[in-house]
Amino acid sequence: MELTNLHHQIENFLFDLQVKIIHALESEDNQGKFNYDLWERKEGGGGKSAILENGLILEKAGVNVSAVWGIAPEFLFKEKEHSEITDGIKEKLNFYATGLSLVIHPKHPLIPIIHMNIRYFELSNGVWWFGGGIDLTPHYVDAEQARWFHRELKKHCDTYHPEFYPKFKKWADDYFFLPHRNETRGIGGIFFDRLNENSGLDKEKLVQFWKDLGMLFIPIYTTLIQWNKNKNFQDSHIDWQLVRRSRYVEFNLLYDKGTKFGLETGGRTESILMSLPPLAAWKYNYIPEKHSEEFKTLELLKKGINWIDF
Amino acid sequence: MELTNLHHQIENFLFDLQVKIIHALESEDNQGKFNYDLWERKEGGGGKSAILENGLILEKAGVNVSAVWGIAPEFLFKEKEHSEITDGIKEKLNFYATGLSLVIHPKHPLIPIIHMNIRYFELSNGVWWFGGGIDLTPHYVDAEQARWFHRELKKHCDTYHPEFYPKFKKWADDYFFLPHRNETRGIGGIFFDRLNENSGLDKEKLVQFWKDLGMLFIPIYTTLIQWNKNKNFQDSHIDWQLVRRSRYVEFNLLYDKGTKFGLETGGRTESILMSLPPLAAWKYNYIPEKHSEEFKTLELLKKGINWIDF
Repeated sequence: MELTNLHHQIENFLFDLQVKIIHALESEDNQGKFNYDLWERKEGGGGKSAILENGLILEKAGVNVSAVWGIAPEFLFKEKEHSEITDGIKEKLNFYATGLSLVIHPKHPLIPIIHMNIRYFELSNGVWWFGGGIDLTPHYVDAEQARWFHRELKKHCDTYHPEFYPKFKKWADDYFFLPHRNETRGIGGIFFDRLNENSGLDKEKLVQFWKDLGMLFIPIYTTLIQWNKNKNFQDSHIDWQLVRRSRYVEFNLLYDKGTKFGLETGGRTESILMSLPPLAAWKYNYIPEKHSEEFKTLELLKKGINWIDF
Repeated sequence: MELTNLHHQIENFLFDLQVKIIHALESEDNQGKFNYDLWERKEGGGGKSAILENGLILEKAGVNVSAVWGIAPEFLFKEKEHSEITDGIKEKLNFYATGLSLVIHPKHPLIPIIHMNIRYFELSNGVWWFGGGIDLTPHYVDAEQARWFHRELKKHCDTYHPEFYPKFKKWADDYFFLPHRNETRGIGGIFFDRLNENSGLDKEKLVQFWKDLGMLFIPIYTTLIQWNKNKNFQDSHIDWQLVRRSRYVEFNLLYDKGTKFGLETGGRTESILMSLPPLAAWKYNYIPEKHSEEFKTLELLKKGINWIDF
């Protein structure tokens, strides 16, 4: 597959965004520094993983950019709901995929875990789509901050399409869900996949929507750090943080499609699993006391909460 | 499905074994006590979970017995290699399943993690089988103890059938394997499933083989505790223990069939996930120094090692 101007434009944007994010996070942390790993994929392409461990504020932060291509893997054609690409089973299609993915596990239990992923995908038969999202996993849900976070996402979406926020918010609720716990991973955010010419925006507008989402990460997360980093906390907050992180592990290893497909298709294990927390705890059948902060948080880890007017 | 004498005999054996194991472990720990949860399954049957947390020697130990029945779940008939039961798709078959499952995460990094599972399964069309195994996951592989452990298992197997040990040892190697790490979970042990009248033993002999395996746990694990519990260790041993435990989590959530099926078929989440360690750590791209004890252990987490003559 020939790499076009659009591929180069998108790749450049992502590698440039990675640098911006790293600078913003290092400056926020004021101590930790990112380490880099350049890696290559035998079948085509590669990426750059950036990891910061044991910072002052960031206990573990991973920001990964990749751009890979080659013969399209079989599993892509197994999702029956996407009839536009199931024809690929017969032809031998090539694919091109690029994306930026980040997960941050802060040291401070009142700063939330954040995840962002933005990706672009194309097949040699002309099929293409954008995917992505930002979602928040607070160890303790602060209703005011949750409302602010969702309003920021809505503001961004509304600039492009009135249906984007409600649709993508619901998609995040449904995606970041642990059925065996009957709880959401966090307070959600937005999530979308396979956005193409049928999305209501033309490709040029979609690129803009998608890039602007990527740019939203820095102001959102630095604000959340500022708001929470000087708050007092006790050992009990850390205990709970470790329990919440174990749910994060459960979601990523049991349900996350990116993790599963990455590992199954021979992706770089350390880049895929950099999303896992530095430390996590499993306590048997731990149920927080009624009316405690931990209990209140559990009650807010539900689908369908209207955070905008909460 | 009518519960027969055999069902009662097997169930009684398992609940009795659970009591014996609990007594042995409490006496070994000398401080920690098990807590019990009796649970019922809406569709039929139930179980008894016993958990000890924060003992002197046992950081987290779970011993679970269950006996459940009802309409056989669909997934049983999806494994095409088992033609003897695929007919069940058309008829509405009932099933009966009982088993004891245990996982122990010791506090001391030189005492290995141990897992045992023994189970019996029956369908209303007369099909039945035994499954089970014991396997060891040392944080640090001690070659002499690994050899002893495998010799104990071989001795047990050889009493019943000369092909059991080699076959079940390989089965464990293949089953307890993390492809994305290219390492085995530990030093394996034995693993078997769907052992029936074609196993080379008649049902009566099989029951005996299977029960004796269950009885083997106490002498094996108490010996391993005795051998290691007074050894000195440093913080670096604990760091490594936490890393090894994270691999245990990865195996159980990504690959373990019992965990997957349990969660998918609405099993009791806390009883299924009691296998997860109390605390686990993920360090990015951690590679131990050459010639270190940690490095030597990694080199022994491979399939196909002949431990008997090691």
